[in-house]
Amino acid sequence: MDGCVFCKIVRGELPAAVVFEDEGFVVFLDRRPLFPGHCLVVPRQHYGTYLDLPPATVAQLALATQLAARAVQQGMEADGIYLAVNNTVSQSVPHVHVHVVPRRWHDGLQGFFWPRQQYPGAEMERVRTAIAAAAAQLSSQSAQA
Amino acid sequence: MDGCVFCKIVRGELPAAVVFEDEGFVVFLDRRPLFPGHCLVVPRQHYGTYLDLPPATVAQLALATQLAARAVQQGMEADGIYLAVNNTVSQSVPHVHVHVVPRRWHDGLQGFFWPRQQYPGAEMERVRTAIAAAAAQLSSQSAQA
Repeated sequence: MDGCVFCKIVRGELPAAVVFEDEGFVVFLDRRPLFPGHCLVVPRQHYGTYLDLPPATVAQLALATQLAARAVQQGMEADGIYLAVNNTVSQSVPHVHVHVVPRRWHDGLQGFFWPRQQYPGAEMERVRTAIAAAAAQLSSQSAQA
Repeated sequence: MDGCVFCKIVRGELPAAVVFEDEGFVVFLDRRPLFPGHCLVVPRQHYGTYLDLPPATVAQLALATQLAARAVQQGMEADGIYLAVNNTVSQSVPHVHVHVVPRRWHDGLQGFFWPRQQYPGAEMERVRTAIAAAAAQLSSQSAQA
């Protein structure tokens, strides 16, 4: 993708503070971290979102993310690791990337920064049925593929 | 794990609004969602965090998460999907689980709800070096394994 910032980093056309790279992925520091050591795991090949990734790439991305999580935890002496992927909404760069963020006890960041809701009445079952139907359809499609 | 709430759900000893399950994973609605349709992807076998998962399980979890993300997007007619894993810090149940949350344009949730920082002076390179050293060590260990 010509205009993609992350593709430019992958090709070496833009600088980045790279902490790890291999054939499939580049891991580098986010320039505006939630906390120092906040990294992004980016596949070299351009895909828009996590939902677009082919199966082999999803699996490899997960392994690269686990390595990055362990490295950030060890290198930053962190107490925990927050992993996140924003897809489409709140996704600032439309090239899939996993955030790997070091956490410390009492660092002030909440796991979620948002009032959690409750399902009124039969709403939970209605929602469950809608997602279960989609999952069954998608699962049978992937079994046939 | 005898006392683990998610192990009890996996074993059917506690009820849950299951949307999908297979040999390795159970996907069910979070009872206190960020937004309706918020699901958790949970491996049947007990592991504490994402960092503890064996390679095959990491890869399978990623595929189960992608299926759940597509199902939530389709079933909820969502505009986007937020994926997150809290490890140790902010992790309410110590059995690894991936949050799959439907997003909509202008839903009011920020991608991050926290002031992003900047690295002063040479701090970015110091952080990069610490994590890169850990990544190189961990990568060579896994290559030898």
